[in-house]
Amino acid sequence: MDIALLGGTGDIGEGLALRLAYDTNHAVRIGSREASKAEAKAEEYLNELDSRGTEAEVTGHANPEAAAGADVVVLAVPAYHLTDTIEAVTDELTGVLVTPAVGMKRDEDGLHYNPPGHGSVTALARDAAPDEVPVVGAFHNLPAGRLADLDATFEWDTVVVGDDDDAKRTVMDITEGIAGLRALDGGGIANAGEVEAVTPLLVNLASENEGLHGLGVRFQ
Amino acid sequence: MDIALLGGTGDIGEGLALRLAYDTNHAVRIGSREASKAEAKAEEYLNELDSRGTEAEVTGHANPEAAAGADVVVLAVPAYHLTDTIEAVTDELTGVLVTPAVGMKRDEDGLHYNPPGHGSVTALARDAAPDEVPVVGAFHNLPAGRLADLDATFEWDTVVVGDDDDAKRTVMDITEGIAGLRALDGGGIANAGEVEAVTPLLVNLASENEGLHGLGVRFQ
Repeated sequence: MDIALLGGTGDIGEGLALRLAYDTNHAVRIGSREASKAEAKAEEYLNELDSRGTEAEVTGHANPEAAAGADVVVLAVPAYHLTDTIEAVTDELTGVLVTPAVGMKRDEDGLHYNPPGHGSVTALARDAAPDEVPVVGAFHNLPAGRLADLDATFEWDTVVVGDDDDAKRTVMDITEGIAGLRALDGGGIANAGEVEAVTPLLVNLASENEGLHGLGVRFQ
Repeated sequence: MDIALLGGTGDIGEGLALRLAYDTNHAVRIGSREASKAEAKAEEYLNELDSRGTEAEVTGHANPEAAAGADVVVLAVPAYHLTDTIEAVTDELTGVLVTPAVGMKRDEDGLHYNPPGHGSVTALARDAAPDEVPVVGAFHNLPAGRLADLDATFEWDTVVVGDDDDAKRTVMDITEGIAGLRALDGGGIANAGEVEAVTPLLVNLASENEGLHGLGVRFQ
């Protein structure tokens, strides 16, 4: 499949790009607002993969070009860039739109879940996307740094939420192609808030407990 | 230590009572609104422990008697009984008050976190308790059934939140006395919402994914 990672030059984008390229046969398109930045990052990822003897298809593009005709488009951008990123590619969307973003705010105690008025960032993406484009929430609770470190091993879950069962299944199958990741069905987009809220919890736990960092989550 | 489990006849109370009695040397006091009900449950727990060759101190009491002078008082009651349970024992509290309750509501999609206006049930307990009583949130994300099944093994975390470090440490130490449970510091009570919100997520995951039930959580 062709998987576009819009904002694929950022930290979670890098993690997903490297793991998808390393562990699966999907073609990975890195998207950025500037094509040149995406091309440079794609080159960097390819070098990293090559140093490990892995041949992969990773290319860099401006976001609309990356999204055009892709089977899956991942919005690997901060929550506050979600709607403008969707707007920039809206005419190009033909496949499944995936959002891993979480709204958070920091105060003196720690990081807190701060959902938009839509109830969750996933719901915000659904409302911003064209009606015919299925929106799926996934990859919210993955620590970017460890994901991008191909020497790191893990046993993590990602909870996948969506109102279109086929789209959800597509994203779950892609997820399970990554070694150490298990995809769990979280139900509909109405259930996204509780999934997104795990992300600030992971950050708080890493900051409060010595020896824990780059935490993911496993439900067992 | 003397640990009182108010509402210790209910499902999470049963799980905590059995595990504490089975795995630790703490004296466990079962509290209920009716002393006779608590006494009957304490007898039932003792029989279960005895059948496994475990001698333990488990006694049944009316809630105020259970709470009186206990080192730790656990409010093992539903969120909607939290404030009236605290009121009933408020003059007896001398130790740490622990709340595992979570506010939830069910709709057609699943179970959702439904915090009180205080921001979390833990914050509600803090506001309802006397100022000099330290309040700690813990045990939110433990599945009662598997906890109460002494044949079940697990590797779960419980996130402990509180604004009094000594009280938090006391609860973390008690938690780690239970085999398979790891206590993680979640920071202050302001961070409780994200911890409590994991509970409806666990229920949704068990209901959406075949073969998964009685889920706890591990951060790794």
